[in-house]
Amino acid sequence: MATQANSVPHPTLISVDPFVPADQQKGIHNRWHPDIPAFATVKPGQTFKLEIVDWTGAQIGNNDNSDDVKNVDLTKIHNLTGPVAVDGAEPGDCLVVDILDVRPFDKMPWGYTGIFELENGGGLFAREFNSRAAKAIWDLDGVYATSRHIPGVRFAGVSHPGLIGTAPSAELLATWNKREGELIAAHANSIPPVAFPPEPKGAYVGQDNIPEEVRNKIYAEGARTVPGREHGGNCDIKNLSRGSRCYFPVFVQGANLSVGDLHFSQGDGEISFCGAIEMAGIVTLRTSIIKGGIEKFGLKNPIFLPSPVDPMYSAKLIFEGISVDLHGDGKQYNMDATVAYKQAALNAIDYLMKIGYTREQAYLLLSAAPVESHVGAIVDSPNACVTLGIPIGIFEHDILPKEEGLVKKDFGQCAIRSDGVV
Amino acid sequence: MATQANSVPHPTLISVDPFVPADQQKGIHNRWHPDIPAFATVKPGQTFKLEIVDWTGAQIGNNDNSDDVKNVDLTKIHNLTGPVAVDGAEPGDCLVVDILDVRPFDKMPWGYTGIFELENGGGLFAREFNSRAAKAIWDLDGVYATSRHIPGVRFAGVSHPGLIGTAPSAELLATWNKREGELIAAHANSIPPVAFPPEPKGAYVGQDNIPEEVRNKIYAEGARTVPGREHGGNCDIKNLSRGSRCYFPVFVQGANLSVGDLHFSQGDGEISFCGAIEMAGIVTLRTSIIKGGIEKFGLKNPIFLPSPVDPMYSAKLIFEGISVDLHGDGKQYNMDATVAYKQAALNAIDYLMKIGYTREQAYLLLSAAPVESHVGAIVDSPNACVTLGIPIGIFEHDILPKEEGLVKKDFGQCAIRSDGVV
Amino acid sequence: MATQANSVPHPTLISVDPFVPADQQKGIHNRWHPDIPAFATVKPGQTFKLEIVDWTGAQIGNNDNSDDVKNVDLTKIHNLTGPVAVDGAEPGDCLVVDILDVRPFDKMPWGYTGIFELENGGGLFAREFNSRAAKAIWDLDGVYATSRHIPGVRFAGVSHPGLIGTAPSAELLATWNKREGELIAAHANSIPPVAFPPEPKGAYVGQDNIPEEVRNKIYAEGARTVPGREHGGNCDIKNLSRGSRCYFPVFVQGANLSVGDLHFSQGDGEISFCGAIEMAGIVTLRTSIIKGGIEKFGLKNPIFLPSPVDPMYSAKLIFEGISVDLHGDGKQYNMDATVAYKQAALNAIDYLMKIGYTREQAYLLLSAAPVESHVGAIVDSPNACVTLGIPIGIFEHDILPKEEGLVKKDFGQCAIRSDGVV
Amino acid sequence: MATQANSVPHPTLISVDPFVPADQQKGIHNRWHPDIPAFATVKPGQTFKLEIVDWTGAQIGNNDNSDDVKNVDLTKIHNLTGPVAVDGAEPGDCLVVDILDVRPFDKMPWGYTGIFELENGGGLFAREFNSRAAKAIWDLDGVYATSRHIPGVRFAGVSHPGLIGTAPSAELLATWNKREGELIAAHANSIPPVAFPPEPKGAYVGQDNIPEEVRNKIYAEGARTVPGREHGGNCDIKNLSRGSRCYFPVFVQGANLSVGDLHFSQGDGEISFCGAIEMAGIVTLRTSIIKGGIEKFGLKNPIFLPSPVDPMYSAKLIFEGISVDLHGDGKQYNMDATVAYKQAALNAIDYLMKIGYTREQAYLLLSAAPVESHVGAIVDSPNACVTLGIPIGIFEHDILPKEEGLVKKDFGQCAIRSDGVV
Repeated sequence: MATQANSVPHPTLISVDPFVPADQQKGIHNRWHPDIPAFATVKPGQTFKLEIVDWTGAQIGNNDNSDDVKNVDLTKIHNLTGPVAVDGAEPGDCLVVDILDVRPFDKMPWGYTGIFELENGGGLFAREFNSRAAKAIWDLDGVYATSRHIPGVRFAGVSHPGLIGTAPSAELLATWNKREGELIAAHANSIPPVAFPPEPKGAYVGQDNIPEEVRNKIYAEGARTVPGREHGGNCDIKNLSRGSRCYFPVFVQGANLSVGDLHFSQGDGEISFCGAIEMAGIVTLRTSIIKGGIEKFGLKNPIFLPSPVDPMYSAKLIFEGISVDLHGDGKQYNMDATVAYKQAALNAIDYLMKIGYTREQAYLLLSAAPVESHVGAIVDSPNACVTLGIPIGIFEHDILPKEEGLVKKDFGQCAIRSDGVV
Repeated sequence: MATQANSVPHPTLISVDPFVPADQQKGIHNRWHPDIPAFATVKPGQTFKLEIVDWTGAQIGNNDNSDDVKNVDLTKIHNLTGPVAVDGAEPGDCLVVDILDVRPFDKMPWGYTGIFELENGGGLFAREFNSRAAKAIWDLDGVYATSRHIPGVRFAGVSHPGLIGTAPSAELLATWNKREGELIAAHANSIPPVAFPPEPKGAYVGQDNIPEEVRNKIYAEGARTVPGREHGGNCDIKNLSRGSRCYFPVFVQGANLSVGDLHFSQGDGEISFCGAIEMAGIVTLRTSIIKGGIEKFGLKNPIFLPSPVDPMYSAKLIFEGISVDLHGDGKQYNMDATVAYKQAALNAIDYLMKIGYTREQAYLLLSAAPVESHVGAIVDSPNACVTLGIPIGIFEHDILPKEEGLVKKDFGQCAIRSDGVV
Repeated sequence: MATQANSVPHPTLISVDPFVPADQQKGIHNRWHPDIPAFATVKPGQTFKLEIVDWTGAQIGNNDNSDDVKNVDLTKIHNLTGPVAVDGAEPGDCLVVDILDVRPFDKMPWGYTGIFELENGGGLFAREFNSRAAKAIWDLDGVYATSRHIPGVRFAGVSHPGLIGTAPSAELLATWNKREGELIAAHANSIPPVAFPPEPKGAYVGQDNIPEEVRNKIYAEGARTVPGREHGGNCDIKNLSRGSRCYFPVFVQGANLSVGDLHFSQGDGEISFCGAIEMAGIVTLRTSIIKGGIEKFGLKNPIFLPSPVDPMYSAKLIFEGISVDLHGDGKQYNMDATVAYKQAALNAIDYLMKIGYTREQAYLLLSAAPVESHVGAIVDSPNACVTLGIPIGIFEHDILPKEEGLVKKDFGQCAIRSDGVV
Repeated sequence: MATQANSVPHPTLISVDPFVPADQQKGIHNRWHPDIPAFATVKPGQTFKLEIVDWTGAQIGNNDNSDDVKNVDLTKIHNLTGPVAVDGAEPGDCLVVDILDVRPFDKMPWGYTGIFELENGGGLFAREFNSRAAKAIWDLDGVYATSRHIPGVRFAGVSHPGLIGTAPSAELLATWNKREGELIAAHANSIPPVAFPPEPKGAYVGQDNIPEEVRNKIYAEGARTVPGREHGGNCDIKNLSRGSRCYFPVFVQGANLSVGDLHFSQGDGEISFCGAIEMAGIVTLRTSIIKGGIEKFGLKNPIFLPSPVDPMYSAKLIFEGISVDLHGDGKQYNMDATVAYKQAALNAIDYLMKIGYTREQAYLLLSAAPVESHVGAIVDSPNACVTLGIPIGIFEHDILPKEEGLVKKDFGQCAIRSDGVV
């Protein structure tokens, strides 16, 4: 018969508490550095779990104003669980990671999506909208999310770690800091900043027994976690979801995999920056090693196989954008897919406002829902063309264009600052 | 019983011959201008067909060298069938177009994909590859394409018009010419050019009875057809395919719809510029009008509903790219999705070369096959992240990463120049 | 340049006229018999076309009453184009057939779905409904079908030959006639009949030069075309559609493939018997031979790979049925999937009637639309459970269950008999 | 910040221990009867969890022989968690149930699929195979299942409750017992039995405070749980999965919903009877009530909307079956979809045996994997045609038909009886 004895749970290698500030917990770090020691070790082929705090490390609450978003401390973000060393992994290898499951803690069945202040975090439209803090709390009910702050929608999440990667070698880290430093230098005083240099303030490695000089070195040199890079990192690819298989390059002995920034759901682009449904939770992983895989597969970046259980919403309403700033001064850009993406998103936001959502709700919804954005064409000079498709099936009512026009409903407003500024 | 009398075919409003140069045929034009008269008129609700030459107007042949691509006359491209006026359409309306079918001529069951010379047409990697002319001829067998120049693959086409749009008003045309002229001025002598100004040479409107002064005006001012713009145009969106429903803004009396540049198939991005499987053929359309639709739906660009019969290849191998030029000088770009797209594509090309395709074959294949490119994240400063997914099911053999590495087969080479230069 | 010389159309091996009675045309036959000579021959690897009359051979017209359905001559049905011999195919081989395209004649862009009289053809609910003739004419607009007789729906067709198969050997034919004869004997005078024995009346092979004694033998012994059998035949599998690859067993020299009964669309089950959207049209095929394939793959029946371009309607409303006659006398059947299917279909018909369709319209719609029926469970004694899913996206309005109940619209009625009997 | 206070977990209404025999636990019952009191109550709109033992109530172990399957006590099966009363539900209403999640216990990450003995449980091929007990243990790793007993496959589960339903009224229960009793009487001594009459032995309701006479009545009259019926029940519909929305008829005050028989995965048909991946686990549900819904929607059986996160395996190898017993005596059946299903399944089993699986492994695999079975056609007298499609992507190697034939690998054998009898 079924017994406890013949039922072996998958081990949880690192446990965390989602209600305790990240910098008070073990097995968490928030910078990338080769000298951060592995906190746990696994053998290839072993299924294991990691518990993960939300990306801010418990800074955001389940409530109805956005003051916590306004005041978020961004030096303490992307609290990663790890590193986990994989027995036998060596520089030059490929680390195959099966992302077997991603789910919220049972004790915390909610997540949030935030719009950050222009001066504290920004986002894709931080300048266009002169962004003020806003947020939506999402209730997580099994595979679905709904929000009291964005009524009228319900969707299945394409749950994934926004951030997953192997540790950089010293050489790779130096390359990152150099190239990003040059960009920062070229855009001094940009608001929001174009990139983030190493910053000891807020840096954290939740391990004892790290010699002070090593810790200082890590904090002084450690790469910030915001961008995706050659090792993976904060790619925020929604389809790196539960059920996907990912191939990462290995740069240090043991590979030293770290994971964080769990998303219950996210749209392509994650436009509001804190744009996914951010959550704390648990990932289930299995790894294997392909010796010499970097060379075998030409891995300059990770590659992956998507999951067969990603949500299927086949009917979509699709918006186009071209690299002309039609929502601004009408300027013509030169084959700029970022501009084209932004125009497609602004077209979608305008449409959502015509059916009754506020600009803030629309911005949050495009960030969090399983929106798909394709690069349509990128050779038709001078206009890149990017599309953004909203699944029709996530809405409780029919949003399609009709001869009689669109019905504007009243969906209220999302959570805003306690001082009422939007 | 079934009789000819009770079987009314859908009328072909404009007929062309795919084997005759476009500038010798009626009902074709290759510039956008409000003064081009409608060549045919339909009532809303009527199903009709348009015949369409390939985008070069018969300049490319079904043969095994690329000299025709090398010498293509680009002043004579994007030969559009139309304009077709829709009874009752007025500026400010939305023209709903059902793209009911797109197929090649029975008498011409082939298409082509070309890499253009750096100095004559270019393409996404024109400079990186110092492109020389190359091409692949595709045999079109019902829903499938195969190529003697790219063995080992077969795929179902997501057939669509690369180019479809309404006529611009005089004001809109002036806006286009102004903004693109400024871009050209800012990038003088760029190779390939960043944009194309009006050019009387090669301009063509296949209609008699146009007063000479009007014709001269059209040729002098007419916008070139290369980019997609507010009216649709050369968007090269692969999912604007047979079965889709599109909503276009109307800028002139009658809307004056024109269609061209049929693609049997195309990957997101259409990277080699002549990157789709270009074909001549027949579209079947139906239109309706939504009065005041521009205002009702906030149409700054077309919007559309994709087709339920687009090919479904659920298993993919996905490559990531970030806005760092890892295939070049390692430079860090600032949230540049175009750079990220290029890196993802270069990662894919490298991989395809490891399994045996030449760089030219890989470039053509990514352009023509139903490849999907998503904007992963566009807020993680400084790195945009773009993915490019190749459907696994289009290959005759298994291309997935294996522990033993990749097997390099010999697929020969695509069609190249008769002088052997690649 | 593109020329007629370098553009070789796929050859049409057999041409027919959809407006001429089938029994006045060459290259058509309506019985299965090994002695029917091949009418055309192809080499493996060659792409070719076959033209095909509608299954009744032009007996049904595009009009608004169902008298032609009432009076259809069922001894003259399933007019097949062929046989086509494949060079080198021998008994024991597997004939691989790529169904590359299936489309209506340009000159006949319509099809029909019929309910047959109880006494002349029947159908799944012939007895339950005491069926009287009814029909719907469908307009075929590219990938879509709509009907003036069933307003409110539009759907993409999963186009396929209802009937495709290789010729039987003499031994196989004898087996068929024996086993079906025994069934007929066991159900004498059943209305509608449980099966159809060989019948010289109406038998037809459109070839000259067949010796009279051979022709008489064919007509006397030839198997009727109604059921699917080991060789394929009238399987009416909607997913044997354009883009699919099928593996047929070969029983005679040359395989002798015949094709007929084209369907623009069909639901799983094809419940009204003439339940697909029946059409005349053109198939494009390619074949190859696998020597000894029957043994290699254990082919007792054909196997196939479905098409990547089958319509994708992911959202469905699904009805369950169990093997209890809840719509009739409440009788309990023993694990009978046919009864369960019927109950699911009757549940669906009732639902469609609640939103305003007549029973006849509902019956026709379930037959013709891309409805999916799954065998849920077939081991839970005594109840088989079968599901039937209607795609939501084919309706112009929302049909989902709502708190306020269902809105009953007026959709008129389909085409019925001129005497008004339904 | 995130706190325990603002994080309210979904309540678990009924808890069970998967390692304790079901008949020693509270909140479990294994018969259907209107007099079983509700064990818990919820308000409409509340998200809640139920814990559920495996269908045998811990009789089967994670080990490598099938003796436990051989000796399973079938009077004690389908241990349901519940009933749960929904506030306000009344007879005639429709109970809408959102199946929000279905997952195994973290402490029991495994499940099993069993072949039952001919004389103890049976299964679809119990007589054809003279079935002896066999089983496969599946490791559940996040969304995937693999088995040491069936190497070479890995698939994502379409997780669902095999059994979910509302309580019958006294009248409905009487109808069930009458009609099934008649069937049993008509097939006396059938092995395996055609149906199961009420049976006090093994009957169980895990609630105190039930008056003895009521308990005796429940045990004497209570309907067995094997078949699906009007109220839902053991439908074993794989797509009634997490993410689906189901509409049940209500027959008693409070609706009294019960759930059991969780399946990590199942193929259409669940052919080996214990054919799903049976597991213990947790469901997350939410309910709402539509007053008078039975009449509004014509609910003779439940209807449902499938989940957007069901696994998507688009490429399949599809087997056909017709209602002729080609694997047996060649007998012709009359439009019998059950026979056709069986033939399709036998064709698939033969094919799987050609690539190296044993008959037992093939039988178990078809039962457990996300196999799709469609009713192709059910009107082509005398042959029903049913298809069964195996997803290609679940295999680690290529199983498609090849010119060179199929490669037969060695996959060992599944778990069999300790006496070695198969």
